[in-house]
Amino acid sequence: MNILVLNAGSSSLKYQVIEMPSETVKCVGLIERIGTDNTIFTHEKEGEKYSEILPIKNHEIGLQNITKTLLDAKIGVINAVDEIEVVGHRIVHGGSKFSKTTIVNQEVKDSIRELFDLAPLHNPANLTGIEIAETIFTSAKQIAIFDTAFHQTMPKVAYQYAIPNSYLEDHKIRAYGFHGTSHKYVSEKAIEYLGEKSKNLITIHLGNGCSMTAIKDGESIETSLGFGPTNGLIMGTRAGDIDQSVIFFLMKKLNKSAEEVNNLLQKESGLKGLTGFSDLREISEKAAKGNIDCQNALDLASHRLKKYIGSYAAILNGLDAIVFTAGIGENSSLMREMACENLNFLGIELDDLKNKIRSKEITEIQSKNSKIKILVIPTNEEIEIAKQSYQLLK
Amino acid sequence: MNILVLNAGSSSLKYQVIEMPSETVKCVGLIERIGTDNTIFTHEKEGEKYSEILPIKNHEIGLQNITKTLLDAKIGVINAVDEIEVVGHRIVHGGSKFSKTTIVNQEVKDSIRELFDLAPLHNPANLTGIEIAETIFTSAKQIAIFDTAFHQTMPKVAYQYAIPNSYLEDHKIRAYGFHGTSHKYVSEKAIEYLGEKSKNLITIHLGNGCSMTAIKDGESIETSLGFGPTNGLIMGTRAGDIDQSVIFFLMKKLNKSAEEVNNLLQKESGLKGLTGFSDLREISEKAAKGNIDCQNALDLASHRLKKYIGSYAAILNGLDAIVFTAGIGENSSLMREMACENLNFLGIELDDLKNKIRSKEITEIQSKNSKIKILVIPTNEEIEIAKQSYQLLK
Repeated sequence: MNILVLNAGSSSLKYQVIEMPSETVKCVGLIERIGTDNTIFTHEKEGEKYSEILPIKNHEIGLQNITKTLLDAKIGVINAVDEIEVVGHRIVHGGSKFSKTTIVNQEVKDSIRELFDLAPLHNPANLTGIEIAETIFTSAKQIAIFDTAFHQTMPKVAYQYAIPNSYLEDHKIRAYGFHGTSHKYVSEKAIEYLGEKSKNLITIHLGNGCSMTAIKDGESIETSLGFGPTNGLIMGTRAGDIDQSVIFFLMKKLNKSAEEVNNLLQKESGLKGLTGFSDLREISEKAAKGNIDCQNALDLASHRLKKYIGSYAAILNGLDAIVFTAGIGENSSLMREMACENLNFLGIELDDLKNKIRSKEITEIQSKNSKIKILVIPTNEEIEIAKQSYQLLK
Repeated sequence: MNILVLNAGSSSLKYQVIEMPSETVKCVGLIERIGTDNTIFTHEKEGEKYSEILPIKNHEIGLQNITKTLLDAKIGVINAVDEIEVVGHRIVHGGSKFSKTTIVNQEVKDSIRELFDLAPLHNPANLTGIEIAETIFTSAKQIAIFDTAFHQTMPKVAYQYAIPNSYLEDHKIRAYGFHGTSHKYVSEKAIEYLGEKSKNLITIHLGNGCSMTAIKDGESIETSLGFGPTNGLIMGTRAGDIDQSVIFFLMKKLNKSAEEVNNLLQKESGLKGLTGFSDLREISEKAAKGNIDCQNALDLASHRLKKYIGSYAAILNGLDAIVFTAGIGENSSLMREMACENLNFLGIELDDLKNKIRSKEITEIQSKNSKIKILVIPTNEEIEIAKQSYQLLK
């Protein structure tokens, strides 16, 4: 079964064609800067990369371009449009309604639209992706995979904020959590790998966005991103947790508008705000060369990670393994080392040498004495989307 | 040495006369609703209470009334104003400048004034208290005891937020922490009581305001209240931690002003927002009778406590004891029980019977198997203020 995995952003379209159940990735591609004269179209098949700069006005033309490429005799992967049997759409926000992957119908589309307010940057683009795919891949099943779905198992103590109940009931203000597809994928890999010793897990997704999830018996019981994608860990440009009184102070005393403050916290904060750089590799290198701001940013980010590890170990009341994943989680041995340092009270001890190993496979990096396993597991949201789509139809 | 301990709020004056070094409380009193026609003046000496309703226009007249009472032949405790050798003033915000109790001079007063922006509800009243006391107790030393001072030992990882460095450098936006006088008092009591096994402590101050502090070798290394007195634990009317995106959503989608949202989070949230009641005793009773909102509020508040206990155990990388104090911490066996439940992974196990004991002394309430001591220690901020004033002058 050929599944086209589609991730439509506000000015981008990411895609893969994956054959299931073999999980064979037939091609990978990306269109960036849609709406400009310099749209970048990248396509990769069997290790060979093709890229082109051309004007692509909107998502519809973008997806038409993708389809043409998929059908291309040389760099394509299908002979006819109906060879794509499923289009699996990544949808950022599923609200409280979707706890599972779902076949798209009018009701599902209406619900995604109802959630525009909660995910103004993502859900509109995601819905556009569905609507265009329906017109091109007419015989395919359209399936929606929600980034929030995995966290719908969270209990009320984890998702409700301590504000009047009416905000939860009438306005659905609560923690939803994100990166669910990734947390689900790596936690399932971990459970498969660890066997019985996988009752209590903490998964740590460190990419551009960062979040951590406490997982009990395979279910998310709490996660660090909440109502929006800004809280919790320190991210590339996002502040993560911050005292709300800072927001009111910035507005009242420094005369900033709500939008300016929101922008500051989402786009000018985090590692970038602390160092001027948002790429962790660059920051790590500069810290090693003595840049004090960069060292400070690493200290702050890893301190925040430690606090969440402790917090989640407490609510899980036990810990079998912690799992690092995504760009930084998989590749920064420094961040893993700093996050695990001085946590032996919790039974966490890293092996410095093992931590330096780079692998595409699951890797154990704890020391012999560590009571808790420390794993690095490469995430793969596209495979997870394909898997869930396949399982749903089977 | 007679010390008048003075705590001036925006419409109140609390006082005690304490003889040092014997720590004898000679009298206790309170003026509430200053500025109204129904000001309530309460004074207590040797177990006997006197109270009066009268119009008191301002703090100056308030302190004149207090002085008259202190000099009263029957209910007073001094024969002449100069028998008060020290006035110890509780000051809420000392910013980054004051890490210790300080004798008041013009510079100190100017600094308290410079911090009005950071503590608009408290520092102006605190300064008024000093200025009036100076005119009445002319021969006394005026001493300032800062609520933030104890937390000035926090490292940068604990006090800096992940926003651009200029906000810390130019605008002093950072975590300061509050309830320092209480955290200091009970942690010193705990250290005295525990002896060597007191390297890593968590002190939990649960009153109208709530905060928790991680204490390493007697020093605060992190605390749950930050820049303002609103973050962290769920309080009587304050939300504690909340995703900042909720704030922007309320402003943008529900058309609330910043002031309305701030007001909501500080005065209409927390236990009150979740239940309609802000008194924990009432909430506990209603929960026991089956009120679902009340049960839910207790669940949320204790869940938050657990998360902070885990978080602080992680950054301390060890834990010798947790200490409950202040109104709720000292008196609610239910909240202590719920906060410690299912934390045996961290070595925390409560003894249900010991937890029910009510005492004015330090009480151990952990079970025999608990690796961590759990203590209830009555706080006494006034004695702490008197102690610090006395030590400074000695």
